[in-house]
Amino acid sequence: MHKVIYDTDPGVDDAMALLFLHRHPEIDLIGITTVFGNASIETTTRNALFLKREWNIAAPVAKGASVTIDPSRKEGMWPTFVHGDNGLGNIDVPATIDLPLDPRPAYRFIIETVRANPGEVTLVAVGRMTNLALALKEDPEIAGLVKQVVIMGGNFYVPGNVTPVAEANIHGDPEAADIVMTAPWKVVVIGLDVTAITTMSRSFLGDIARSGDDAVKLLNDLSQFYIDFYKHAVEDGMMVHDSCASVYVVAPELFTSVTGAVRVVCGGIADGQTVVKPDGRRFPPGDWDGLPSQIVCTGIQSDKVLDLIRTTLLNA
Amino acid sequence: MHKVIYDTDPGVDDAMALLFLHRHPEIDLIGITTVFGNASIETTTRNALFLKREWNIAAPVAKGASVTIDPSRKEGMWPTFVHGDNGLGNIDVPATIDLPLDPRPAYRFIIETVRANPGEVTLVAVGRMTNLALALKEDPEIAGLVKQVVIMGGNFYVPGNVTPVAEANIHGDPEAADIVMTAPWKVVVIGLDVTAITTMSRSFLGDIARSGDDAVKLLNDLSQFYIDFYKHAVEDGMMVHDSCASVYVVAPELFTSVTGAVRVVCGGIADGQTVVKPDGRRFPPGDWDGLPSQIVCTGIQSDKVLDLIRTTLLNA
Repeated sequence: MHKVIYDTDPGVDDAMALLFLHRHPEIDLIGITTVFGNASIETTTRNALFLKREWNIAAPVAKGASVTIDPSRKEGMWPTFVHGDNGLGNIDVPATIDLPLDPRPAYRFIIETVRANPGEVTLVAVGRMTNLALALKEDPEIAGLVKQVVIMGGNFYVPGNVTPVAEANIHGDPEAADIVMTAPWKVVVIGLDVTAITTMSRSFLGDIARSGDDAVKLLNDLSQFYIDFYKHAVEDGMMVHDSCASVYVVAPELFTSVTGAVRVVCGGIADGQTVVKPDGRRFPPGDWDGLPSQIVCTGIQSDKVLDLIRTTLLNA
Repeated sequence: MHKVIYDTDPGVDDAMALLFLHRHPEIDLIGITTVFGNASIETTTRNALFLKREWNIAAPVAKGASVTIDPSRKEGMWPTFVHGDNGLGNIDVPATIDLPLDPRPAYRFIIETVRANPGEVTLVAVGRMTNLALALKEDPEIAGLVKQVVIMGGNFYVPGNVTPVAEANIHGDPEAADIVMTAPWKVVVIGLDVTAITTMSRSFLGDIARSGDDAVKLLNDLSQFYIDFYKHAVEDGMMVHDSCASVYVVAPELFTSVTGAVRVVCGGIADGQTVVKPDGRRFPPGDWDGLPSQIVCTGIQSDKVLDLIRTTLLNA
C-alpha cells in the first residue's frame, strides 16, 4: 500500500485525481492538504471538504497556504475561466461544508504525518508547492523521511501554459518550487511534457459516468466547464494533468523519464520555468551543480493511463 | 543570387560555413564581419583574413565587436578546448596576415552595405549577435532594408550547450540577441534543435577532402581538433552548427519550423535562453506580446543538409 498525502487546490482535474487516489486499491489516502492556486485558499479548502463529504473520504483535510512563500510576489486573478468561479466548474456547491478541518496548518500536518510514518509517505502535490516548501523550511529533516514526492508541474521540452515558458503550478510560486526541487528527497516531476498529451474526451468521461456511481457522475458534472475551456487546445476533451501524477504512484512503468538536477527560474521573463540538467550532460560549472538528481517524466503511455483512470474510478 | 554578409567568429564550424558560402553558386558573398566569441576579436579577425587568403575569397573583412553590448557583463575564458588555442583547431596559422581590413567597423559595414543593396542582403550571423545589435542601434531603419537574418544560435525544445538552458552564441551576449530577435526584420533561428542532430563524421569529411582541392584539405585539417572535442557527444564526428545556417539560405525546404515572437532571457539562472511564443498559442498578456513573428527551425533533414555541404565544398 502507498500511503499518500494529497496536496491540492481543487480544481477540476484535482477532483479527478482525488477520486483516483481514494479508489485505487493500492493507495491509502491518509491526508488531504489544500493550497491556493486554482482558486483562493477558502474556496479550494471548501471544495476539498465538499468532495470529501460527497465521496465519503476518510482522510482529514488540513488547510494550507494562502499566499506565495515570498509574500512580496503579486497575486494575479484566479483562473475562473479554467475551473469556474467556484473552482469546481460552477456546479452547485454549498458556501460552507459542515465538516471539521484538521486543526493543523497543512505544512504541520505534513511534517507530523511524515514523522509518524518514516519512509512510508508519498506526497502527491498538484498545486503550487507552497505547503511543501513551508514544511521543508520548518523541518528540513523530513526530506530524508519521505518516500517520494510526485508533483504535477513544470515543463521541460514543451511550451508552458501560462507563459511561453512556464506552467501554472510552478509559475504560481517559483521560489517554493525551487526549494522543493532542490531538496534532498526524491522528486518525480510530472509536467506538461506528459500531461498536455494525456487528454480525456468528453465521451470517454461520459461513458465512465454512465457505468459508474454517483461519485463518478458528480465528477463528470463538475468537469464539463473545464472541458469547454479546453476547446482551444483539445478536441472536445480535457488534459488530465493531476491524474497523471496520481497514476504515477501506482504505475510508474507507464512513464519514461530523464534524471537530473532541476532548478526553477525566479524572476525575469522566464519566471517559473523549470529546467533540468540531464545527468551525464557536460556543462561548465553552474547553478545546477551539486544538487540532487530528480526524475523528470518526458514520455507517457497516455492510452494506458486513461484506461487505468477509468478502471480505478469505476472501482466503487 | 543571394547577397550574403557573413558575421562570424572563426571558429572551426565557422570555417566550413564560410567555404560553403564562398562556393555555393547561388550565393554572392559580399562581406565578412568578425565578432568575438570562439576566440578574441583579434584572433577571429586574423582567422577570417587567413581563410580569405587561403581560399581566395574576394569579399572584404570588417572587424567587429570585442565586448558584449552591455559592457558590464563579465567575459569568461575563450573556449580553447573546443576550437583550439588559435580558434582554428591548432593548425599552423601565421600570427598576422598581410591583407587589408575594410576600414569600417563591422556594424558600419553592415549598415552601409545594406543601404547600398536595399531589400537584397541576407545576414548570416553565426557568432554572438553583437555586431547586428550595434547596427540596429545605430540605424534602426536597416531592419526594413534587410532581406532576412539567418542566425545560428539558441535552443528551444532541447537542452543548451553552455548551460542546461542556453546555447553559446546567445549566452555570450543575451542583450544583443534580444535586440536582434525582437527587431522588425525577418529572423530565421537555426538553433541546437536542428544543429545538434546534424553531425558530420570524420570519415565523411575525410572523403570530401580526398576528392577535393587544397581548400577542402585545409578545412579537413583544421576540423580534427574540433572532432576530437566532440567525442563526448558525437561518435567520431562533429556538429556542423554554422553550416546549417548557411544551408538554410539556399535550401530552406530542408527545414521545418514554428513561427512566433522570440525573446532572450537576460540575467538569472536562465541567462541567454531563447524562448518562442508559438503563433496561435494562447497565453495571458506578457513579455512576448506585440513583437514580430520570427521563424524558429525545429526540424531538419540532416542527411540532405550534409549531402548539400559535400556537393558545395567540392564545387571548386
